[in-house]
Amino acid sequence: MKLVEAIIKPFKMDEVKDALNEIGIEGITVSEVKGFGRQKGHTELYRGAEYVVDFIPKIKMEIAVPDELVNKVVETIENTAKTGRIGDGKIFIIPLEEAVRIRTGEKGTDAI
Amino acid sequence: MKLVEAIIKPFKMDEVKDALNEIGIEGITVSEVKGFGRQKGHTELYRGAEYVVDFIPKIKMEIAVPDELVNKVVETIENTAKTGRIGDGKIFIIPLEEAVRIRTGEKGTDAI
Amino acid sequence: MKLVEAIIKPFKMDEVKDALNEIGIEGITVSEVKGFGRQKGHTELYRGAEYVVDFIPKIKMEIAVPDELVNKVVETIENTAKTGRIGDGKIFIIPLEEAVRIRTGEKGTDAI
Ligand SMILES: Nc1ncnc2c1ncn2[C@@H]1O[C@H](COP(=O)(O)OP(=O)(O)OP(=O)(O)O)[C@@H](O)[C@H]1O
Ligand SMILES: Nc1ncnc2c1ncn2[C@@H]1O[C@H](COP(=O)(O)OP(=O)(O)OP(=O)(O)O)[C@@H](O)[C@H]1O
Ligand SMILES: Nc1ncnc2c1ncn2[C@@H]1O[C@H](COP(=O)(O)OP(=O)(O)OP(=O)(O)O)[C@@H](O)[C@H]1O
Ligand SMILES: [Mg+2]
Ligand SMILES: [Mg+2]
Ligand SMILES: [Mg+2]
Repeated sequence: MKLVEAIIKPFKMDEVKDALNEIGIEGITVSEVKGFGRQKGHTELYRGAEYVVDFIPKIKMEIAVPDELVNKVVETIENTAKTGRIGDGKIFIIPLEEAVRIRTGEKGTDAI
Repeated sequence: MKLVEAIIKPFKMDEVKDALNEIGIEGITVSEVKGFGRQKGHTELYRGAEYVVDFIPKIKMEIAVPDELVNKVVETIENTAKTGRIGDGKIFIIPLEEAVRIRTGEKGTDAI
Repeated sequence: MKLVEAIIKPFKMDEVKDALNEIGIEGITVSEVKGFGRQKGHTELYRGAEYVVDFIPKIKMEIAVPDELVNKVVETIENTAKTGRIGDGKIFIIPLEEAVRIRTGEKGTDAI
């Protein structure tokens, strides 16, 4: 299992969530974060204003997935979160050793 | 070492925290997240209202623990966070390669 | 690659961020968390008040870094976040299997 963590633009959240649902992903944990990325001489637009150096609001999604779904999940996030502009975000893949569904005690891929 | 991440119902936070303290866990990091889980035809109750599809407030707890405490920590969270109803939450176990206590520079299990 | 997670005192955030920039780190994700640590008979000061048992506001920084930068990043955080007093925080190092820059599709160390 893997924990897929995606940092995306806030206005893309619903679109990404819906696309993940469509490929069968039912569990997602979302938090509001502030992001700091490369600017490389460019500036990132946020709500019509230019941000040069400071933190920009982003959405972090965490999705625990079985190994065989990782590629599909990553592609789905890439395709839906991408605008082609600076600041589209990152996807990180972290090993996940165990998962437990608290209500039932199920473990492993049955639990996610 | 492992990083235990638990997504639980907000009203269970104090009970889980107290139970973890009782088994000797002193360090916990908590954040407010929004959760999206399976509904499977069911709806999840939140503050007396039925939520069918949308994000529900959850609490995320992160606890860095030595290997020999992982099972005890997971069981403690399961036992205290469980209500038996839809939405009780998940526990994820992630490998933790190193830990540092910033004040002292201690590393490894001495640092957690 | 590793995911470096640091829990620090909020007033140290800018200093840590600037120090990380100076060693070439351009991407950081920040969130507001509540922390619970050891008290060991001591109390931790927050805004001039003593906190004996309860949650204290902390800042969580997440930084994806190539293996060869991990030590430098950890030392930089230690040096800048340290006050020498109770509650200075923790650094956790988690394995990171893959990273993707959503705008370009770049992967691995090119993506972070
Ligand atoms: N190395 C990193 N570690 C942790 N978080 C990162 C890292 N790089 C980027 N992020 C997070 O992802 C968000 C979006 O990053 P961003 O898309 O701007 O990456 P980038 O490398 O600057 O690419 P681009 O050139 O397309 O802007 C950042 O605001 C930050 O929250
Ligand atoms: N695969 C997953 N990845 C990331 N977060 C998840 C995942 N599954 C669940 N979560 C998080 O855990 C929270 C609680 O999940 P929940 O307890 O509803 O799981 P479930 O599988 O739907 O079980 P149940 O049938 O008992 O409701 C969700 O709101 C979400 O924040
Ligand atoms: N084992 C742990 N797992 C997860 N988070 C932790 C852990 N230990 C500490 N933290 C987080 O780090 C924050 C700061 O911890 P703190 O610096 O107080 O650690 P400590 O071990 O009590 O060291 P000190 O004796 O210097 O206070 C806590 O408020 C909590 O958010
Ligand atoms: Mg950028
Ligand atoms: Mg559910
Ligand atoms: Mg402490």
